[in-house]
Amino acid sequence: MEQEYASTLLENAVSELSRLPGIGRKTALRLALHILRQEERMGVSLGEAIIKLRQGVKYCKTCHNISETDKCPICANPARDASMVCVVESVKDVMSFENTRQYMGLYHVLGGVISPMDGVGPDQLEIDSLVERIKNNEVKEVILALSATMEGETTNFYIYRKLGGLPVKITQLARGVSVGNEIEYTDEVTLGRSLLNRTLFSDSFNNV
Amino acid sequence: MEQEYASTLLENAVSELSRLPGIGRKTALRLALHILRQEERMGVSLGEAIIKLRQGVKYCKTCHNISETDKCPICANPARDASMVCVVESVKDVMSFENTRQYMGLYHVLGGVISPMDGVGPDQLEIDSLVERIKNNEVKEVILALSATMEGETTNFYIYRKLGGLPVKITQLARGVSVGNEIEYTDEVTLGRSLLNRTLFSDSFNNV
Repeated sequence: MEQEYASTLLENAVSELSRLPGIGRKTALRLALHILRQEERMGVSLGEAIIKLRQGVKYCKTCHNISETDKCPICANPARDASMVCVVESVKDVMSFENTRQYMGLYHVLGGVISPMDGVGPDQLEIDSLVERIKNNEVKEVILALSATMEGETTNFYIYRKLGGLPVKITQLARGVSVGNEIEYTDEVTLGRSLLNRTLFSDSFNNV
Repeated sequence: MEQEYASTLLENAVSELSRLPGIGRKTALRLALHILRQEERMGVSLGEAIIKLRQGVKYCKTCHNISETDKCPICANPARDASMVCVVESVKDVMSFENTRQYMGLYHVLGGVISPMDGVGPDQLEIDSLVERIKNNEVKEVILALSATMEGETTNFYIYRKLGGLPVKITQLARGVSVGNEIEYTDEVTLGRSLLNRTLFSDSFNNV
């Protein structure tokens, strides 16, 4: 049943909010009524933050991470190792890797993975710019860090072919049992890969 | 671990979004990145809808429901039965009763219930305006439709005392087993009330 709202402003806010992922009309209404109950300043600053976010954020011309300048803080940092480029799907993945604090190289944000089902082809992704970047720079290693899905693997392979012939080492993230996971609940493909790529037990001490 | 953002605009949007109820920093980040992926027009219209909502919505001078005019559409509707006033906690409750399509009277939105624990006293609620309204109008019945909680019952009783002496019938919502609920999972207080206030079985046909 279509809910009737007492105000078109409320109705409008609810339909805008319910376009966000994971937010249905009920949650959107709850959020809108919450905004109404707060001080005016708070609602206005939320709205302004969203507008400024959408209008103000730029993308790094080199790695396509979000940035407020032409060159993002990571690309601009001389302490980072410019000989390594980690290829990721999204801005969020950059944050995930940064949170590990174990990577000091640069990134390249593709903006997604090749997915014919969703109408995403190689042309919509930052693959050509990656190839140009590798050609023109002294990058020694490209780490493919895409999702371990069909689409991710396809994209990995596509990039691998595109970079073929360039004097660059192409690696990908290790596949194996996730830390904390039980063998019983790990799928057999992962188990197979983890057997095949088993590592020396003594190496696990050295990494700690 | 505190997440590091590549942009202060993103960081600002994430902290504003995470002030909304039920939205943590992870969800806020997901929403912000979603907004960045959409067309600029969509993000801007979301932000504007929130600002307009907060700045534009007024409250009905009679019933305190949200409205865009001094008198809300319900109070202004001559087809509604002005002899009945249903006292509710919030704007959302008005919507809930409107959705039943079984009530044709007017409303009075209190703006909450008396709750000393949360620092809400009778003065912060629209109780005095309710008493004035009943005094000056030809209201014949006041329906107390507050939550069946300790705070709701306290508020019911407070209003009942305040309206004492006025020539008005004061009723409250029926308490009983919720439609669709199993007896096994219904608490004993509700079961006791539902026994005490049992209704003629033949009446249940008439209401259908």
